[in-house]
Amino acid sequence: MTVSREVELEGHIIDSGMMQSCFGIIMDLGGSFSVQEFDIGRHKDEESYARMLVEADDEDQLQSIVHELHQHGVNPSDPKDATLVPAPDDQVVPHGFYSTTNHPTYIRHDGEWIEVEDMEMDCAVVVEDGDSPRAYTKVLNAIEEGDLVVTDETGIKVQPPERPRDSGGAFGFMQGGVSSERPSESTIRKIANAIEETKKEGGKVMAVCGPALIHSGAREDLARLVREGYVDMLSAGNGFAVHDIERDIYGTSLGMDTESLDHPRHGHKHHIYTISEVIREGGIEEAVESGTIESGVMYECIDNDRPFVLAGSIRDDGPLPDTITDAVEAQNAIREQAHEADMVLMLSTLLHSVAVGNCLPSTTRVVCVDINPATVTQLLDRGSAQAVGMVTDIGTFVPILAEQLLEE
Amino acid sequence: MTVSREVELEGHIIDSGMMQSCFGIIMDLGGSFSVQEFDIGRHKDEESYARMLVEADDEDQLQSIVHELHQHGVNPSDPKDATLVPAPDDQVVPHGFYSTTNHPTYIRHDGEWIEVEDMEMDCAVVVEDGDSPRAYTKVLNAIEEGDLVVTDETGIKVQPPERPRDSGGAFGFMQGGVSSERPSESTIRKIANAIEETKKEGGKVMAVCGPALIHSGAREDLARLVREGYVDMLSAGNGFAVHDIERDIYGTSLGMDTESLDHPRHGHKHHIYTISEVIREGGIEEAVESGTIESGVMYECIDNDRPFVLAGSIRDDGPLPDTITDAVEAQNAIREQAHEADMVLMLSTLLHSVAVGNCLPSTTRVVCVDINPATVTQLLDRGSAQAVGMVTDIGTFVPILAEQLLEE
Amino acid sequence: MTVSREVELEGHIIDSGMMQSCFGIIMDLGGSFSVQEFDIGRHKDEESYARMLVEADDEDQLQSIVHELHQHGVNPSDPKDATLVPAPDDQVVPHGFYSTTNHPTYIRHDGEWIEVEDMEMDCAVVVEDGDSPRAYTKVLNAIEEGDLVVTDETGIKVQPPERPRDSGGAFGFMQGGVSSERPSESTIRKIANAIEETKKEGGKVMAVCGPALIHSGAREDLARLVREGYVDMLSAGNGFAVHDIERDIYGTSLGMDTESLDHPRHGHKHHIYTISEVIREGGIEEAVESGTIESGVMYECIDNDRPFVLAGSIRDDGPLPDTITDAVEAQNAIREQAHEADMVLMLSTLLHSVAVGNCLPSTTRVVCVDINPATVTQLLDRGSAQAVGMVTDIGTFVPILAEQLLEE
Amino acid sequence: MTVSREVELEGHIIDSGMMQSCFGIIMDLGGSFSVQEFDIGRHKDEESYARMLVEADDEDQLQSIVHELHQHGVNPSDPKDATLVPAPDDQVVPHGFYSTTNHPTYIRHDGEWIEVEDMEMDCAVVVEDGDSPRAYTKVLNAIEEGDLVVTDETGIKVQPPERPRDSGGAFGFMQGGVSSERPSESTIRKIANAIEETKKEGGKVMAVCGPALIHSGAREDLARLVREGYVDMLSAGNGFAVHDIERDIYGTSLGMDTESLDHPRHGHKHHIYTISEVIREGGIEEAVESGTIESGVMYECIDNDRPFVLAGSIRDDGPLPDTITDAVEAQNAIREQAHEADMVLMLSTLLHSVAVGNCLPSTTRVVCVDINPATVTQLLDRGSAQAVGMVTDIGTFVPILAEQLLEE
Repeated sequence: MTVSREVELEGHIIDSGMMQSCFGIIMDLGGSFSVQEFDIGRHKDEESYARMLVEADDEDQLQSIVHELHQHGVNPSDPKDATLVPAPDDQVVPHGFYSTTNHPTYIRHDGEWIEVEDMEMDCAVVVEDGDSPRAYTKVLNAIEEGDLVVTDETGIKVQPPERPRDSGGAFGFMQGGVSSERPSESTIRKIANAIEETKKEGGKVMAVCGPALIHSGAREDLARLVREGYVDMLSAGNGFAVHDIERDIYGTSLGMDTESLDHPRHGHKHHIYTISEVIREGGIEEAVESGTIESGVMYECIDNDRPFVLAGSIRDDGPLPDTITDAVEAQNAIREQAHEADMVLMLSTLLHSVAVGNCLPSTTRVVCVDINPATVTQLLDRGSAQAVGMVTDIGTFVPILAEQLLEE
Repeated sequence: MTVSREVELEGHIIDSGMMQSCFGIIMDLGGSFSVQEFDIGRHKDEESYARMLVEADDEDQLQSIVHELHQHGVNPSDPKDATLVPAPDDQVVPHGFYSTTNHPTYIRHDGEWIEVEDMEMDCAVVVEDGDSPRAYTKVLNAIEEGDLVVTDETGIKVQPPERPRDSGGAFGFMQGGVSSERPSESTIRKIANAIEETKKEGGKVMAVCGPALIHSGAREDLARLVREGYVDMLSAGNGFAVHDIERDIYGTSLGMDTESLDHPRHGHKHHIYTISEVIREGGIEEAVESGTIESGVMYECIDNDRPFVLAGSIRDDGPLPDTITDAVEAQNAIREQAHEADMVLMLSTLLHSVAVGNCLPSTTRVVCVDINPATVTQLLDRGSAQAVGMVTDIGTFVPILAEQLLEE
Repeated sequence: MTVSREVELEGHIIDSGMMQSCFGIIMDLGGSFSVQEFDIGRHKDEESYARMLVEADDEDQLQSIVHELHQHGVNPSDPKDATLVPAPDDQVVPHGFYSTTNHPTYIRHDGEWIEVEDMEMDCAVVVEDGDSPRAYTKVLNAIEEGDLVVTDETGIKVQPPERPRDSGGAFGFMQGGVSSERPSESTIRKIANAIEETKKEGGKVMAVCGPALIHSGAREDLARLVREGYVDMLSAGNGFAVHDIERDIYGTSLGMDTESLDHPRHGHKHHIYTISEVIREGGIEEAVESGTIESGVMYECIDNDRPFVLAGSIRDDGPLPDTITDAVEAQNAIREQAHEADMVLMLSTLLHSVAVGNCLPSTTRVVCVDINPATVTQLLDRGSAQAVGMVTDIGTFVPILAEQLLEE
Repeated sequence: MTVSREVELEGHIIDSGMMQSCFGIIMDLGGSFSVQEFDIGRHKDEESYARMLVEADDEDQLQSIVHELHQHGVNPSDPKDATLVPAPDDQVVPHGFYSTTNHPTYIRHDGEWIEVEDMEMDCAVVVEDGDSPRAYTKVLNAIEEGDLVVTDETGIKVQPPERPRDSGGAFGFMQGGVSSERPSESTIRKIANAIEETKKEGGKVMAVCGPALIHSGAREDLARLVREGYVDMLSAGNGFAVHDIERDIYGTSLGMDTESLDHPRHGHKHHIYTISEVIREGGIEEAVESGTIESGVMYECIDNDRPFVLAGSIRDDGPLPDTITDAVEAQNAIREQAHEADMVLMLSTLLHSVAVGNCLPSTTRVVCVDINPATVTQLLDRGSAQAVGMVTDIGTFVPILAEQLLEE
């Protein structure tokens, strides 16, 4: 047995996104609907009208859906008066008081719609009865005992602004954004699940790696992920490989001991010395075979046959013999990898991630992690169907991810 | 006389936003439409179908609209084969070649739809004829003489991804974002126009001001805007007023001479000395009357009767006698200002702008300027109907704005 | 038995900081020194001269010190010719090749000092013998077999630039900066050690907390640190306490479930409802006693008698009855706490941290953690004797810190 | 006739940087000094002692120097008692009151040094007379009428913290940082002066250019600077050149009209079409000669024989035939340019600026402008003798710079 309620949409309901939000809300909250009347504005100046029956499993769910629709400007087609409850004490609102949005709002009182004055969000609405009744917002600490406060959502109409047509170029309609504040550990758990799912389906995981991975101390955990097969392919630059190998040969990354945090005094030479050693051997594979390189991300790639692409740039020292210095050739190598990948982890490198992202279809799963929110936004801004961004420190992200994947 | 073309939409056309985009595109490009068939998916698993006639003034405009619709998954209802033109030379594509999106794409060839392989954006599509014809992407520098390259938009179908319903919490559908890269001078001109328009309509302009305005050398220009009546009200903190007055009394801002860039050696004491001087006088108005303060933003506010609110914070030195130290009292003062404002300029202060923004209805015009993109995003993320954000240096923004307003 | 070497300093050796660096290097590397001659420039145009005997425990240590001094412009007083070794192969430098700085450099060859041409850092120096011998830099990949490459550090003089006296205000001498790239886990371990040490010495640890702590999922771990006595006092704003309590009462933080990452649909009302509940009870302590609040950071503060200060701001909703709304009164409360603290953890809040930092003597230990590097820089920029900053995600920092402190 | 005063330095005066600061202060403020006694700590545990005579032209200047020395821990060798003046009213301090630092501080009273309690910066010091006199800090608003407040700087000793030797790796000594808040117009004027000076001396100015220059609308002004000879050489990437030429051919930059801020609907194709056009012509020079390119930065480079280097990267579309795709080859071209430059303008590109910076000796003048403070810090962090960084919007920087250079 289901319960239902009839609601109405009026205005530029498609153009303003109201119809889309409405369908999304109902489905997200587990309800269903049938469109009973749909009178579409056939030309640009015509308003539309829709009447729908919203259905839910129980009254609670229905309330929840109707509440949410209401915030987006969808109103019950059988309007009743708003419920008014006197405030029990100064600064104390009645239970279930209506908390405002910042959009123009109307209260139904004695069968009439009254516009709420001084609209402002997160306030209560107080109705002053009398010959010409008024409704206005009050912040919580201004509530006085006996104020008639609107509760529930009956008898309230909200009008979200429509997208203006002629904004003159600079001014625009602002709505929603991605907040960077999210619970880190819970999000990492979801990412670990997605990696496991991808592997279970026989898919391939590609890691795009920036040098910060090594400086921040995430090297050993990334190496384990490569060894254990959670990373199938690697894309990086010359610097990443040099830092990784420097850590193996000299115990430092750009001259700092990543365990003790000391800077051994010759340290700043280790970078260029590392390059020199690998050039002497003829390449990374040769240096692994000769025992010059004995651990790390590049070592595990060689040892476990995980293909890697090292792309050169004008900022490189050296570069290593393995680095592809021609940009077009490197792009082709990256492209080949990208087309094989089912899931891509972009780990604190804007540059290589952009290059990889340029070659990805919008259907590949993408995870992007960086300490800089602008990097995350830029990388996710290409219409991926399945994407997650995290603004966090790669030096704590990778260890927690490895723990999730390897220690369960 | 108009020209027209029939197009079709299929799938979750409302839920995916396709319908909304489609209406928007047609109207933005000056066309019109009539909906000829609309078979709405009445339940959440049903797909919808719409057939529309798009009308335009001439063939050019029509092409332009159809092109854009096409990028969003709307296809002509009378499909024809794709146009193939051989590449005239290596690395040279035919004029009008079709440049790809990163979405799944199909090419109509000999009456059949072929899926394009290796989807990737900004590529050309090459068709290999034969018994089992293939279509795939090629980057420009891989094109070879004679390659059959798809041109125009006939016979091409694009499928933008739909918003997934069950993304497991972390993964989401990523689309669009606000880029901070915009032509600065053109944008400032539009803002100047909006200020003039607001004044012409008898509206009030409120400036919310951070201390960076003074350090960055924008003080004199802001003072002129107050004097000339382009700013009617001011909301700021204790620090802003102190820096402004320090500049008047000692010629420095936090100890630095903003003209010569020198730090006169006693300079770091000027801040606390300024506070001490104003306390001695009894307040800003008294200090203006006694001649202690002779110029600047606060001076112009007093001299021209522009009301201001200085709100206190736990980081303040002093504070000045004019600063409202109680947060609730200060909020009430800000609220009163905010409700009177028709346009609000938020000038490089996150804190005060949030406090003001909390009190604004979504119908007030908002301009937000800050060097930090995160601040701009956060401030605009409240569904304002008319808002513009600029990621720029307040020290160059205000002078250019003042020039636009005062020197034409 | 010790080994020693005589070195010389010439020029504006005090003014340029050379003397200071020199003393620091020797001591950092475990050596010692005696100043044998010190002829100080008594007036501003006079150059100084110093001769010192550097002593170390063994030849290795001595080499290391002399190497480092050398990078800072301190040269052996018994110059010998530079050592030249032919490159064994194209692109392969001899072992121990000298890797350049970007400062003007001279090579001693046949008893003469030759200036190295085309100075550039991270290069090798090649000497061309002959009638008028030349020395110039070569990048590694330009080295040709047989090139005479300078190795070791004998016979090399480096001249770091001096601080210009008359830089015209804008131009300045740039040196050193704090890099944000540091191994996260190792750094957190050091911080945990410092907390334990502070507690062992009977000291008090104060935590300054921003709301991101709750959103990012660090709430439970912070609550444990309060309960177990690693945090003795708490300083925060109204928002922090509301988010913490919302999580207890509704399971959400600003409307998001921090475990499942879902946004329950009524969620955005939880914030204002939480405030309303606590106001109804009369305050946090009352709400804990009545059982309305049963867990979290504020709960542990009440339950374990850890004093807290909640300071109000103009951005607050509510506020809670516990929040001190007057800025001067709140400052006084913060000041009292700050003067008692021996170690202060500033956890992702610029605002409250600045307020606390304003009251701290330069001798208090300070830890500052924020995802925004500018915040970390600003907070540490007050000449603290013992300070550490981390640019990282508070949602991963606190759990790892708690693990270090509680599970060993 | 000069005036003079004897001062003393005690402790680790070289190691702590005190000696260096002291010399710097005296010279910056136009004074001179003679060292009368210098007893250097010859070993690492020995403290040093210095006595100096500071000379100035008049008493004012001398006061100013002594004041500043005092802030850095240098004290007069003839100590007198501190001057105490009763506060004239509540919250009102006497003129010339001593405003504190956050370092340990001592007040001389009746011939004895008393440590100031509750040290905190920007406070007044109040002395309580009596049998056991005390001194403590008071914030301005806590001052009561009659409080004995320390004025001037006589009889005050400050002890700045020394650099700790054994900080355990993570904790460090924090001092000074570069603030991004500087008066924009004054700074740009200084940069314009430096460019003119460089040109007058026959030097060469090199501009390193990022694509944001075009998006932000600075293209025309940069083109003028090239034409008028204020920019002699250009270093950029493929993207910069493509955006510049797109603006010429299609009037857009990445599809946006930089004047009207509109996005013409075919706009996103302009980028790839521009590349295709230039490939068809054979290169930029050919496209200028054929009249395909008629304006802009690249046009002026060709037209006025200003050499440019376009370096490729893995993120490029195309690339243009002029772009050097091999990283080593491109580095060599950049190196050649860099060695010729006397002044380098790094304009909103981290990547190319790092590549150029790698090749610069520390004696070249460097200007770095970017909206991201981290970029500015990173680029200036290489010990340049003459460097200036600006955190500002390139779209307002270049027009103001051009105005300064071209319209005087």
